[in-house]
Amino acid sequence: MMPRASILTIGNEVVQGRVLNTNQQYLGRRLTMIGFEVVLAASVPDRMDLIVEILGIASERFSSDVIISTGGLGPTYDDITSEALSRYLGEDHVINEDALRMIREKYESRGIELTPERIKMAMMPRSARPIPNPVGTAPGIYVEKNNKIYICLPGVPSEMQAMWERSVEPLLRRMSNIQIVEKVITVKGVMESSAAKIINKIVKENPSVYVKSQPKGLELGTPILDIYIMAASQHLETARKECEKTCEKIVEGLRSHGGRIWDSCICT
Amino acid sequence: MMPRASILTIGNEVVQGRVLNTNQQYLGRRLTMIGFEVVLAASVPDRMDLIVEILGIASERFSSDVIISTGGLGPTYDDITSEALSRYLGEDHVINEDALRMIREKYESRGIELTPERIKMAMMPRSARPIPNPVGTAPGIYVEKNNKIYICLPGVPSEMQAMWERSVEPLLRRMSNIQIVEKVITVKGVMESSAAKIINKIVKENPSVYVKSQPKGLELGTPILDIYIMAASQHLETARKECEKTCEKIVEGLRSHGGRIWDSCICT
Repeated sequence: MMPRASILTIGNEVVQGRVLNTNQQYLGRRLTMIGFEVVLAASVPDRMDLIVEILGIASERFSSDVIISTGGLGPTYDDITSEALSRYLGEDHVINEDALRMIREKYESRGIELTPERIKMAMMPRSARPIPNPVGTAPGIYVEKNNKIYICLPGVPSEMQAMWERSVEPLLRRMSNIQIVEKVITVKGVMESSAAKIINKIVKENPSVYVKSQPKGLELGTPILDIYIMAASQHLETARKECEKTCEKIVEGLRSHGGRIWDSCICT
Repeated sequence: MMPRASILTIGNEVVQGRVLNTNQQYLGRRLTMIGFEVVLAASVPDRMDLIVEILGIASERFSSDVIISTGGLGPTYDDITSEALSRYLGEDHVINEDALRMIREKYESRGIELTPERIKMAMMPRSARPIPNPVGTAPGIYVEKNNKIYICLPGVPSEMQAMWERSVEPLLRRMSNIQIVEKVITVKGVMESSAAKIINKIVKENPSVYVKSQPKGLELGTPILDIYIMAASQHLETARKECEKTCEKIVEGLRSHGGRIWDSCICT
């Protein structure tokens, strides 16, 4: 069984489409590659009721073992992710002394005073531990409660990614022993609705392997299709063999339907 | 009151980060600009239980008036959005004769037979109406039930966008009489935590206007900040005035803190 993860990207700019949600893609990719099943990736605006609601949904209705949020940790009035987490967990929202120290050091080294807006970034649920931010100012938040892990990261991609790489991934890696192997085949000359028949049969015979076709449009009237294959196992070698075996069957099936295999790459 | 909308982008490739979620951005932007409040934008994998679950959450817990999904309408085994909608609505999942006609015409014109995988794309909840797909094959789905509208569109962006423009936007435009005016100011030399104080004060005085700062990094050690201003009103002129007034106050506040206004544009 793979541990389950939810990704929550908080912010009006995300739901209103003013920014492209690259944080969701980054975290979805990374969580998948270290053996998590991403069951939900949700964005809500900067509204207390909706953030509390989606925390509950990710944790309870989607039974996530890990809930990671991005956004809403900064100094402005609508940065309320931390307070929403305190409310959801039913904990006091207090100044975390370790977080305050991190923030103070950042500003003092530049000769800047600590205003209420800056101190706000040190406020967290009582049981939280801060995650150092090597790029920006706001620390991240780590809470372990009722066998679930809640992690809040800033929304600025460079900060979020640095914190993921330094602190979050090393920690989460230990939670899953699943190895993932992926392959993408690009095929020309077979319609998705024709490939569907071949794929359906192969998937039924190999339920542990996941196969997905994605139409990439037409080239001079000829359909182009990407076929993605993913195998998961506790043993890398088993996953690799399963992936290769399924790949060969699919290539064979597509060739017998007039498909030309155009490109294939191992992405693991 | 603005009508509320949820965007559901279905597919393993989305939650696993194999594709960037441009559909979410497109729909979030369009819905906002025609006067909807986007309260949720969620992605789930191609799993029946999770799609049914998120339909219920968008509809009930987030009280959406309109729920729009993308993805999962194609011919393959894991294209199950339509069936999930039938299950959620408690309706029979049946062949829609209008949809079947649309699909048959597409294939017959190219001399291709109707297989079960192709006929599957015509299956919809009993009360559904198909939305024509001018680019690809799978029709979209339109259901109006219990004062809510459910719309399912394909995941291929060119198909989704064509259907939005042709069929969906003209229909939804009638539901909101709210006009949106936006402005973005780029300012150099003020930290977000300093701007926060100015913005907090202005927002308190103008609760009908939404203001959000977004740090864009440093240039030669000087912070750069985007400040986004959005005003909503039933009257375009009122929204425009509110937006301009707030903008002027913010510019004044930032200048008095040493900020240089670098760029500003009206995006409406």
